[in-house]
Amino acid sequence: VSDSGRSSGPTGAGDSDPGYVFDEDTAVDQVGPGEWSATVSSRWDVVGGAPNGGYLQAIALRALGHEAGLPDPVTSTAHFVAKPEHGPAIVRTTIERRGRHTTGTARLEQGETTVMLLTATFGDLADASGPTRIDGGPPHLPPLDACVAAPDDDALPPIVRRFDARFDPEGIGWMLGEPSGDGRIAGYIRFADSRPVDGLALPLLADAMPPPVLNMVPGIAWVPTLELTTHVRGRPAPGWLRAVFRTRLLVDGYLEEDGEIWDADGRLVAISRQFALVQMGR
Amino acid sequence: VSDSGRSSGPTGAGDSDPGYVFDEDTAVDQVGPGEWSATVSSRWDVVGGAPNGGYLQAIALRALGHEAGLPDPVTSTAHFVAKPEHGPAIVRTTIERRGRHTTGTARLEQGETTVMLLTATFGDLADASGPTRIDGGPPHLPPLDACVAAPDDDALPPIVRRFDARFDPEGIGWMLGEPSGDGRIAGYIRFADSRPVDGLALPLLADAMPPPVLNMVPGIAWVPTLELTTHVRGRPAPGWLRAVFRTRLLVDGYLEEDGEIWDADGRLVAISRQFALVQMGR
Repeated sequence: VSDSGRSSGPTGAGDSDPGYVFDEDTAVDQVGPGEWSATVSSRWDVVGGAPNGGYLQAIALRALGHEAGLPDPVTSTAHFVAKPEHGPAIVRTTIERRGRHTTGTARLEQGETTVMLLTATFGDLADASGPTRIDGGPPHLPPLDACVAAPDDDALPPIVRRFDARFDPEGIGWMLGEPSGDGRIAGYIRFADSRPVDGLALPLLADAMPPPVLNMVPGIAWVPTLELTTHVRGRPAPGWLRAVFRTRLLVDGYLEEDGEIWDADGRLVAISRQFALVQMGR
Repeated sequence: VSDSGRSSGPTGAGDSDPGYVFDEDTAVDQVGPGEWSATVSSRWDVVGGAPNGGYLQAIALRALGHEAGLPDPVTSTAHFVAKPEHGPAIVRTTIERRGRHTTGTARLEQGETTVMLLTATFGDLADASGPTRIDGGPPHLPPLDACVAAPDDDALPPIVRRFDARFDPEGIGWMLGEPSGDGRIAGYIRFADSRPVDGLALPLLADAMPPPVLNMVPGIAWVPTLELTTHVRGRPAPGWLRAVFRTRLLVDGYLEEDGEIWDADGRLVAISRQFALVQMGR
């Protein structure tokens, strides 16, 4: 039994009902100064049996958020340095600077192996005051009932069942062997168990849809993420999020994937960029 | 006298003529295992007398590049946690994982203060093999001689004199007190002393133009960077680079600034994103 819902940070970072899968699977227990135990679950595996990178980032952010004492991980970057195993892990946290913005690092370790390095700066978006100018808006999507859910197929990786996602049909040609050529995947998304989305979950949401490069090149086997940065820009209202992910610049197998996530009220809640590599299949 | 041009990494990261200002001012000397001495110069100061963030990132990348043994910092993220002083600094480096991609961290310290935290993954873009698909291209710019150089004015901050930049007139209305409303600044850029641009310098170039948010809101005093991530995507050909920086999403004073840098042959060489904050003047 995890304590993730109860021992959250002083300002509420990570507060939520421990009955949710996300909270169970990102639970951390303090075992020493700056040392937290965690368990890497298989319930967030992507194709090939590897845990999703955004999921690992959320584990580390939960531990670091406990130490930071500020609710919103306004910018966090993870470098994925070794393939994680399912099972026990240790998160080692260090707070480097406290203030209006608090910055710290976290290292996800399994045995002698460092799996992921995270640096994050926390703030309090409720205290943000300054000008707002938005050039753009939520992604244009067909109505919810014109979008397409993932098939109910046990052969799909477990992460698919963690979300209720409805994809813009324009972006899923690759699933049918007809990639559109346009590196865009977009749709509506929420947790399958209705867990509210907060700043801890947004980096996971930023890595939760299939890579849009699948629409650009046929025959891709895997798109390992080397680095993922997410900026949390707002606290989501309840309801469906709208998300869009784009890859425009695939050069010699390296690519960026840029994401935007907007809430049900049409407000920006996160942007993300990852640096990844395509591995071609046979 | 610095050794920056001579004691570079085994694969040539940072190799260059020590006569260039950039190389002099990012020189590091190993003083212990994973410990490098450096000097923060005033020659890269921005408005307000603070050293440019991309410049600090280049110092740390030079030290880490010596240890990494791979030439290209394909993705690097700096968190700026305290205002740096001019003068001596120590860079502490740790290599976390070696392989086709090598990841390490660097910490820029001055006395008891940690100024900046960096995590970077190095690779070798000459060995990259994989598909290329480009949606877009270099920024549309007027011809070079229709673009505008910074005025030769000693009141401008020192960093202005480190570069030869020619700005698209569309993006400099803010200088004349007539911000266009469009968060875009673009132009041609190279080092003023013709120092070739490499992967070490690209994170600095990604932070070298004025913030495009100046075109969106009048009365901004300062735009401190909290975090800057640069992906090095290619090795620049000699000649003018074309760069474009955009801010689209300014929310309660927080913003992203997205950059693209293309070389004289029309090839992508870097993309960047920073997370920053506007501070309004009186």
